[in-house]
Amino acid sequence: MEIVRPEDIERIHEASLTILEEMGIEVMNDAALALLENAGAEVDHSSGMVRLDRGLVEQALTSVPPQVTLTPRNPDHAIDLGGTHLNFSLVAGPPNVHDRVQGRRSGNYTDYCNLVRLAQSLNIIHLIGNQPTAPQELPAATRHLDTYWANLTLSDRVFHATAIGEQRTLDAIHMCALARGVETEALVDSPALLTVINVNSPRRLDDALCAGLMTMARWGQPCVITPFTLMGAMTPVTLPAALAQQNAEALFGVVLTQLVNPGVPVVYGAFTSNVDMRTGAPAFGTPENTKANLIAGQLARRYGLPYRTSNANASNVADAQAAYETEMALWGAVLGGAHLVYHAAGWLEGGLTASFEKVILDAEILQSMAEILQPIEFGEADLGLDAIRDVEPGGHFFGTEHTMERFETAFYRPLLSDWQNYENWEAAGSEDAYQRATGIWQQLLEGYAEPPMDAAVREALNDYVTRRRGEIERVGLDFE
Amino acid sequence: MEIVRPEDIERIHEASLTILEEMGIEVMNDAALALLENAGAEVDHSSGMVRLDRGLVEQALTSVPPQVTLTPRNPDHAIDLGGTHLNFSLVAGPPNVHDRVQGRRSGNYTDYCNLVRLAQSLNIIHLIGNQPTAPQELPAATRHLDTYWANLTLSDRVFHATAIGEQRTLDAIHMCALARGVETEALVDSPALLTVINVNSPRRLDDALCAGLMTMARWGQPCVITPFTLMGAMTPVTLPAALAQQNAEALFGVVLTQLVNPGVPVVYGAFTSNVDMRTGAPAFGTPENTKANLIAGQLARRYGLPYRTSNANASNVADAQAAYETEMALWGAVLGGAHLVYHAAGWLEGGLTASFEKVILDAEILQSMAEILQPIEFGEADLGLDAIRDVEPGGHFFGTEHTMERFETAFYRPLLSDWQNYENWEAAGSEDAYQRATGIWQQLLEGYAEPPMDAAVREALNDYVTRRRGEIERVGLDFE
Repeated sequence: MEIVRPEDIERIHEASLTILEEMGIEVMNDAALALLENAGAEVDHSSGMVRLDRGLVEQALTSVPPQVTLTPRNPDHAIDLGGTHLNFSLVAGPPNVHDRVQGRRSGNYTDYCNLVRLAQSLNIIHLIGNQPTAPQELPAATRHLDTYWANLTLSDRVFHATAIGEQRTLDAIHMCALARGVETEALVDSPALLTVINVNSPRRLDDALCAGLMTMARWGQPCVITPFTLMGAMTPVTLPAALAQQNAEALFGVVLTQLVNPGVPVVYGAFTSNVDMRTGAPAFGTPENTKANLIAGQLARRYGLPYRTSNANASNVADAQAAYETEMALWGAVLGGAHLVYHAAGWLEGGLTASFEKVILDAEILQSMAEILQPIEFGEADLGLDAIRDVEPGGHFFGTEHTMERFETAFYRPLLSDWQNYENWEAAGSEDAYQRATGIWQQLLEGYAEPPMDAAVREALNDYVTRRRGEIERVGLDFE
Repeated sequence: MEIVRPEDIERIHEASLTILEEMGIEVMNDAALALLENAGAEVDHSSGMVRLDRGLVEQALTSVPPQVTLTPRNPDHAIDLGGTHLNFSLVAGPPNVHDRVQGRRSGNYTDYCNLVRLAQSLNIIHLIGNQPTAPQELPAATRHLDTYWANLTLSDRVFHATAIGEQRTLDAIHMCALARGVETEALVDSPALLTVINVNSPRRLDDALCAGLMTMARWGQPCVITPFTLMGAMTPVTLPAALAQQNAEALFGVVLTQLVNPGVPVVYGAFTSNVDMRTGAPAFGTPENTKANLIAGQLARRYGLPYRTSNANASNVADAQAAYETEMALWGAVLGGAHLVYHAAGWLEGGLTASFEKVILDAEILQSMAEILQPIEFGEADLGLDAIRDVEPGGHFFGTEHTMERFETAFYRPLLSDWQNYENWEAAGSEDAYQRATGIWQQLLEGYAEPPMDAAVREALNDYVTRRRGEIERVGLDFE
């Protein structure tokens, strides 16, 4: 869906080029500065400010591929970013975790693993984003090894490298190769994982993420360049300005990936919402967020780039607000032509908490959306004229042959919705959707089975983690 | 949005014509049968079955106007059905009513009046549909006089005639004319109200509703012809069959209006969802319902008719399920090009209950949707290049001139959403959206002011009600 006229998309595009040419982006990484300067960008070494000629942007856009396939250890769970493909990821990044039984707590490894198990149990969650909750009790320098281990053993889906610096990124790439049973070099032409590079908006790319971006690009893995832009805080309050700035920042990251490795896949990321202007609090699933999701898709298509956006809300509990804000964000994402909807399941409190109940609520919403997107094709029998002829006026179709042949698969079967009448629902305990969601995630975890992994692969991964943990404990990590 | 190819729309259209030509619709009203027979329809008097030649359908479609303006006593609240107009109505028809304070109870006149007051207080509710809850304690034969009185005195918006028979319909038309201070005849060319004619699917049009339809049409008021078709119960389980049947039934009603009064406005109504095939329970806001809302819009446009659909859900409480099912139905309606979204605010329990909290939840959803639909146009200042230039990398835009000039109106301000951080939200009582909604409707009712009405008009209305009540008590009512 296109809600902005093509000529207005060009105006946003032009404004972005002006930002890149005249104002520039601050880059806090020396290797990136050198690379950019070498390519002809104007670099101010005292401020780290980089101004990009539009020719450099246009050049980069000629080499970006429109689509990328990511293959995890189970090739049946490969995903395509681009074309008509739509992928949903588990929530990523929350420092806290919540469920209705144990309440709110700091992120920890037990919950981390359970969230990965839940994602593995729900086919509608196509990939695992960055840490679904931060396992805060684990040492920061080696935590990424534990989370990669969990991603690779508890799940067989695509996941996300924590690209803070080169070493964490390389660890992810090496471990993916081990899990697939191939040499790391094989991943260059057959990418396995992705990362999100958040621009520190306005107009700043930090050191560690630059290093992560460059490592990913060097090894042929896609970065999702995502300015996190809350209008009124990190950008001006007006939507066109926010989009122009977001676009400039995203294009800058795209250029950097192509300078590192021309032709490496890269994804256009967008995460533009607004703040509450009375309090400065972030808001998601707002009308402004929906529109931004729609228009960012127009921009990504303008550049022929795969498009990532988010499914966010600002509610403190998995209630009606969480549901309607999520729907508003999601419809904007889907109608905007997103290939990757990040944070699609489990996001709560503006991203500060991963919620078990919200995973279930979102899975229902995402499954319904997937069902809506099924193409509609029908034969003569589906037009049902004989069935209609056979039922007298005022009658019903419950027992007809046409119905009996089809009823088991005729309609989407919900995960969470309760369609009992009021009396039965009341007799069963008057549970609302939030309460029912608890039973569902508990049941999914009970029924969870670890995806099979070859013992040699497991051992190789284990050896890798042990070796790297020792190394890091001895000599430390970049960007510790 | 068009999700079915034009050639498949034609296949559904053709199937509908086959239903009308070969199977027919049962009509239980003698006057309608006579009119249809006189126009050339094939009438079986023993069964009441009417078969319509496609020529009769095509003829009727040549006289239907694409748009109609309905003018209530306050002309500022006139609504347009057709074109690019989108209108939302209050819930209609529930036998029960619920709020979080008093719980669930039978419909009654006090709650009826309060629901009308709420609708009058919320600008996003453009019209009042049929009784927002049935005032069951009032005598059935004169209840319509009391509800019309409430609609006309507590609100100044368009409302809905209870078109069960000629007399209830005429009472609505006369009272609207009195409220507008015009002769009833003046309404023929300047319609004031609408009604919904539910086809008793499959393929039956009952006596009382036929009489209502014919009265409305005779007096130039639009009927919304709405087959209420739950797939698997009132239609076959397949969506194309359900739509073909719905379309046949709707077209039949359209033909009847045009035979009564060629050129009278009429609205294409659609209300196709599905049942839970395990239990037979009705379901709404399902993927099938969303798709039906989208495709019915294609059909209505095929015929150049204004399009009505619904905003329904099957939840027993105004929770996350109520919110996501409502969103799914609503997005289908809006993307389907609906001109009238019936039951847009307050519908719960598959329509068995009108919920005060759901009115508030829906108002937030509808307001957000209206905001999303605002066209996006922007000048140079909105592109904010100077503002972006003035904020250093990593800085923020909170205090900038560009922000200060715009922040008060920059973003949609929510009615129900709570964007406080978790700690503040917890300190304030951890209220979810359902709990907060209670305070909002209570506050709206406290702040409600009756729209002004000329004393003479009020007296004329009062006299009309008194006179008609006496008449009905003496001699009775048609279709009592």
